[in-house]
Amino acid sequence: MSLTVSNERFRRRFTTFNEIGATNRDGVNRPSLSSANQEARETLVEWFEEANLDVTVDEMGNLFARRAGANDALNPVLIGSHIDSQYNGGRYDGVIGVLGALEVIETLNADGIQTERPIEVVAWSNEEGVRFQPDMLGSGVFAGEFDLEYAYTREDKEGKTFGEELERIGYKGDEPCEPRDLHCYFELHVEQGPQLSESGLSVGVVGGVYGFVWMNAAFTGSADHAGPTPMHLRHDALVATSDVIESVRRITSTGGDDLVGTVGSIDVHPNSINVIPERVDFTLDFRSYDNDIVDHATEQIQREIEHAANRENVEMEYEEIMRVDAEPFDDECIETVERAADAVGTKYMRIVSGAGHDANYLNEICPTSMIFVPSVDGISHTEDEYTEWADVVRGADVLLHAVLEKAKTDGDEQ
Amino acid sequence: MSLTVSNERFRRRFTTFNEIGATNRDGVNRPSLSSANQEARETLVEWFEEANLDVTVDEMGNLFARRAGANDALNPVLIGSHIDSQYNGGRYDGVIGVLGALEVIETLNADGIQTERPIEVVAWSNEEGVRFQPDMLGSGVFAGEFDLEYAYTREDKEGKTFGEELERIGYKGDEPCEPRDLHCYFELHVEQGPQLSESGLSVGVVGGVYGFVWMNAAFTGSADHAGPTPMHLRHDALVATSDVIESVRRITSTGGDDLVGTVGSIDVHPNSINVIPERVDFTLDFRSYDNDIVDHATEQIQREIEHAANRENVEMEYEEIMRVDAEPFDDECIETVERAADAVGTKYMRIVSGAGHDANYLNEICPTSMIFVPSVDGISHTEDEYTEWADVVRGADVLLHAVLEKAKTDGDEQ
Repeated sequence: MSLTVSNERFRRRFTTFNEIGATNRDGVNRPSLSSANQEARETLVEWFEEANLDVTVDEMGNLFARRAGANDALNPVLIGSHIDSQYNGGRYDGVIGVLGALEVIETLNADGIQTERPIEVVAWSNEEGVRFQPDMLGSGVFAGEFDLEYAYTREDKEGKTFGEELERIGYKGDEPCEPRDLHCYFELHVEQGPQLSESGLSVGVVGGVYGFVWMNAAFTGSADHAGPTPMHLRHDALVATSDVIESVRRITSTGGDDLVGTVGSIDVHPNSINVIPERVDFTLDFRSYDNDIVDHATEQIQREIEHAANRENVEMEYEEIMRVDAEPFDDECIETVERAADAVGTKYMRIVSGAGHDANYLNEICPTSMIFVPSVDGISHTEDEYTEWADVVRGADVLLHAVLEKAKTDGDEQ
Repeated sequence: MSLTVSNERFRRRFTTFNEIGATNRDGVNRPSLSSANQEARETLVEWFEEANLDVTVDEMGNLFARRAGANDALNPVLIGSHIDSQYNGGRYDGVIGVLGALEVIETLNADGIQTERPIEVVAWSNEEGVRFQPDMLGSGVFAGEFDLEYAYTREDKEGKTFGEELERIGYKGDEPCEPRDLHCYFELHVEQGPQLSESGLSVGVVGGVYGFVWMNAAFTGSADHAGPTPMHLRHDALVATSDVIESVRRITSTGGDDLVGTVGSIDVHPNSINVIPERVDFTLDFRSYDNDIVDHATEQIQREIEHAANRENVEMEYEEIMRVDAEPFDDECIETVERAADAVGTKYMRIVSGAGHDANYLNEICPTSMIFVPSVDGISHTEDEYTEWADVVRGADVLLHAVLEKAKTDGDEQ
């Protein structure tokens, strides 16, 4: 029987942790840099210290907890995820990756296992991107994708900046937030999609992450009275938007097997029952594992926006606000996770992640892979998010064995 | 040369009146029962009294100003409109009908003309319906359409009631607000549509008002992550709504010559760029001069809502929240307005009003018609609303001559 984490200790920590910012409907409300997020950080740091880890906080508030290796000059194996949540989000998203990583350390401690390489646990700041955009901001700065100053000046809806709020909760650290040498990165996370839940498997070995593009678009027409304005004299920004929403369905039906597209947000002005909508601001999100398919969808939707504007005779605007290329993870890290799953004795499937993760940015600076556990019915980003506890433990066991393989190996790079 | 109103006096009053609650962009902000509405009422009452009119305020805050007739027991000719505005609305909407009616009285006074019948000027409360719904509340209670208690308990967004606010501004009068015998009602108003502006005519003789139906509808699907959720597993409330918006265009293109349909308001939850919309609440507005056409459109859209819910596999809700039948005005009153336009020497066209007016409710209790003057480019309910002053004066002259014909006539009913 292979080494396993402690179901009971892990469960107790998970339950205690999710009392922080708990909602009435079994979710948690701990958005980035909120007071609940502060309390969650304090609890986590306390547990890191109880596990004899060396805790550092970087300029972005990313929390690192280091366990020395026998050969401590070797590059560390980094494991972790995030502890910020959506507004009224689920208890598993991010949390199991951080507490699972701590559980790996506790298991090594309890069994007196000394690894060659140091191991670091990380909790990244602002993964969700619901309070401060863009998402994955902490890992993005760490990987050199964003400037620190850019991150500090991100504002929430009340105009508070990321930098101010990070200082307010006491987690603006001194450690530089910049790329450094890492042996590899593993992240345990819930799938946030239906594939594992449908297949009945406990573990997904993540081969890579979908690329995506985000756009902001807007139409501006005329706010006339809904009664006396004949149809042929209207310039209805909502009708034009509706044309675009329909096109998203048409484009995804023919654009590629795995292409998905969403209009998630829409704001109408003046938004009154008897006034023709003058202006609509809306968002677009296209994703695929094939960058060319995303590119093609982006071109097509721009043409559809132009067509809709011409048809309805309204002004149009659009801009791409974010683009992340599809990223295959490191072959060797993927195979390490597969061997770990075999060691644990769990069946698994290769899977591609539709959602973005901190692992995307880590993948740019070190060999990376991820371990997924099922989201029941694929439900994500709501309080109804649920994963069977046995699956969470299975995932942590796979993480443990992946770490054992990578951290025990003699490194030839330093 | 026929009798005319005083361009100069009318203009001076119009300018002075619109300094109350003036906005930076040439509009006015005098929503129902606001302090600016109070000030406008006080100015109007002062002017009524300067014109030797007998002012009464009814339980709904409707203001009446009476000029005695030679045979004062005859039923009065009622003329007027409203002085409440949209939030940041136009200066002409409602105002010209009330000040135009006062100008008719001043002209009769100045020329020493004694009419057989009494004449009353009215300013109806809460026509716009932007602060307290429904609109046309003052004339609606007067015509027996709504209970007084229902009106008093209408709440604004801050939870203040119509009754409390009416009392606060000092315009809760003692006069019963209920139907009484009237000889006829005329209302001068801006068209709020493009027909006169397009035709180049100064005056529209209003033959009646469109019927309309208002509906609230909603779809409820699932708020899944926009990345990992394949298209075929989505239940997107916004896609279903978009189907309905497209159907409104299809229905209006075939449903009847004058049928118009609008989705004016839409609220999306959670309204986030990377979350599939879980719930959308939206409104529908259909209008035509033919009640059967409105009925048919209502049936069709309900079927489309059902189809859309089935296609997207989301829950649906809909309810009709208001229905007003199309109302032809009184033939004799319409002809009176046409003769008045001939007397003034202005060309005119027959027109049907797409917007609701206080005249709709008055039409239920006495012979009624309206006089429209052009809205340049049909623009309405915004600060950009504009009418050439010469057209406003032309409209008031037509009102004057309609009043002369009706108020001079010996009445056979009392």
